[in-house]
Amino acid sequence: MSLTVVGSVAFDALETPFGKRDKILGGAATHFSLSASFFTQVNAVGVVGGDFSDDEWAVFQRHAINTDDVEIVADGKTFFWRGRYDYDMNTAHTLDTQLNVFETFDPKLSENSKNAKLLFLANIQPTLQKRVREQCPGVEFVALDTMNYWITSVKEVIETIKVVDCLIINDAEARQIADEPNIHKAAKKIMDYGLKALVIKRGEYGATLFTNDGYFAVPAYPLERVFDPTGAGDTFAGGFMGYLASQDAITDETLRRAMIYGSVMASFNVEKFGTERVDALGYDEINERFRDFKRMTHFDEIPFEKASSAA
Amino acid sequence: MSLTVVGSVAFDALETPFGKRDKILGGAATHFSLSASFFTQVNAVGVVGGDFSDDEWAVFQRHAINTDDVEIVADGKTFFWRGRYDYDMNTAHTLDTQLNVFETFDPKLSENSKNAKLLFLANIQPTLQKRVREQCPGVEFVALDTMNYWITSVKEVIETIKVVDCLIINDAEARQIADEPNIHKAAKKIMDYGLKALVIKRGEYGATLFTNDGYFAVPAYPLERVFDPTGAGDTFAGGFMGYLASQDAITDETLRRAMIYGSVMASFNVEKFGTERVDALGYDEINERFRDFKRMTHFDEIPFEKASSAA
Repeated sequence: MSLTVVGSVAFDALETPFGKRDKILGGAATHFSLSASFFTQVNAVGVVGGDFSDDEWAVFQRHAINTDDVEIVADGKTFFWRGRYDYDMNTAHTLDTQLNVFETFDPKLSENSKNAKLLFLANIQPTLQKRVREQCPGVEFVALDTMNYWITSVKEVIETIKVVDCLIINDAEARQIADEPNIHKAAKKIMDYGLKALVIKRGEYGATLFTNDGYFAVPAYPLERVFDPTGAGDTFAGGFMGYLASQDAITDETLRRAMIYGSVMASFNVEKFGTERVDALGYDEINERFRDFKRMTHFDEIPFEKASSAA
Repeated sequence: MSLTVVGSVAFDALETPFGKRDKILGGAATHFSLSASFFTQVNAVGVVGGDFSDDEWAVFQRHAINTDDVEIVADGKTFFWRGRYDYDMNTAHTLDTQLNVFETFDPKLSENSKNAKLLFLANIQPTLQKRVREQCPGVEFVALDTMNYWITSVKEVIETIKVVDCLIINDAEARQIADEPNIHKAAKKIMDYGLKALVIKRGEYGATLFTNDGYFAVPAYPLERVFDPTGAGDTFAGGFMGYLASQDAITDETLRRAMIYGSVMASFNVEKFGTERVDALGYDEINERFRDFKRMTHFDEIPFEKASSAA
């Protein structure tokens, strides 16, 4: 019952309309691990520089995340990203990207990481993702994220999609990969590469799940203030994959609840800067928000009867 | 158990990537009436010119829509709109608008129309909507639509919102009326004008309902091809209000199902040109699609238990 994630561990500098931070813990593998750790045992695979301090390690330790496979390059610097959000919090404006030790990241998975039940390939170069996936032949369910930054070659992305079970992307990426403007046609085309599940994230409009059995849609949690959206996608994926890892089987039913837990975790993530909110989260809050999603979407299935209306 | 709608009856000329039509039946009151007629007795209030032929009247007659209050200006011409949609079917490009007899439209409601249980004010000039609403003091539930075209003065729109129970608009209009980019803050601000319900339509992302009790979100029906989106909003409103008129009481529960029936009807409307699809619709299809919405959104409410995950 464990879950391995391969991806970036980083420092972020952020400016939003609500404040700024010069150097906070970030990165896809960080946000993912933290979110998934509420549901299952997580192994993080990444690389950091000598500037990664006890304060950062403490976040992983607090959540019992296994960091044995986070390589430390003592004379290098950790991946650094500086970004700005304006009032339209949907778009991150990148001000600076310093890949540093992440530039030559060559994931080395221990036997423990390779033998996890589930594997998440956070967004890194697609051929690297494919190589990692091939190192873990025994994994039951592999999910993949990608992003515009890495989609220099759609063909390369598609080759990687073909060796995983699930793809988690946003709608613009889905349209780009499928070269098709209609999102439902795009989803069908991408599913045909052999996926069991496709999750399309739609920001403030929620997320949708496509499987061979059908279609499931979940709205976003209604937030009056999005404080910092950085890492929301990875936090979603962490809740989604973490929940699946905790369940006996991956079925249409557990995938649906995984979509909700992913949405729940992402909704918390954006309430404060970086990892602050999820780091301090409790199970009561998680389950309360899960119930909120049920309240937001439930209706009784009562077919319309012409006869009764004529009364 | 009846419902009155006041709005435009029109001829549309349309060009879409899938074909064109030179002169088909359209207009807000038309699409609304047709949709609502599946659920309740509808009185349409509007105005047409001498060019309105038996073929057009036949559509209303087939659905037993009361057109006694559709005024005929024999020497005038019916409201005409010409529009084009490109592959991005979300945006209508208006090529020509001839208000004709609609320019001096002064709705005259018979006692029968005034005494309906529900009233829908389709998008016309807001002060005209307010005047109609004041003619119907006994109506139980009044809903209002508006659109950018008529929002020359937000103040005027707000004065009309204050005398109705429900507002049905799209998200750009909500942001404009509230002068607030966050849709949830905007909704709160608009609700505070005294509404019982606020419906925000979000096109391909579905629709959301705000009430004093809470929040309800419904996705759009997954369509691989939107053939002609003209009238989708009015068709939604027709299903929504028609269903409410058929029910004994307007509660959080009936409002939720009304949102689904509205979405069901709108999803059919866009499958063919103009009124073609809804005109030929059957109850089996309506209820089958209602069940599809349940399938698309249902998940079991099972809180996460840390203990079981450690197993």
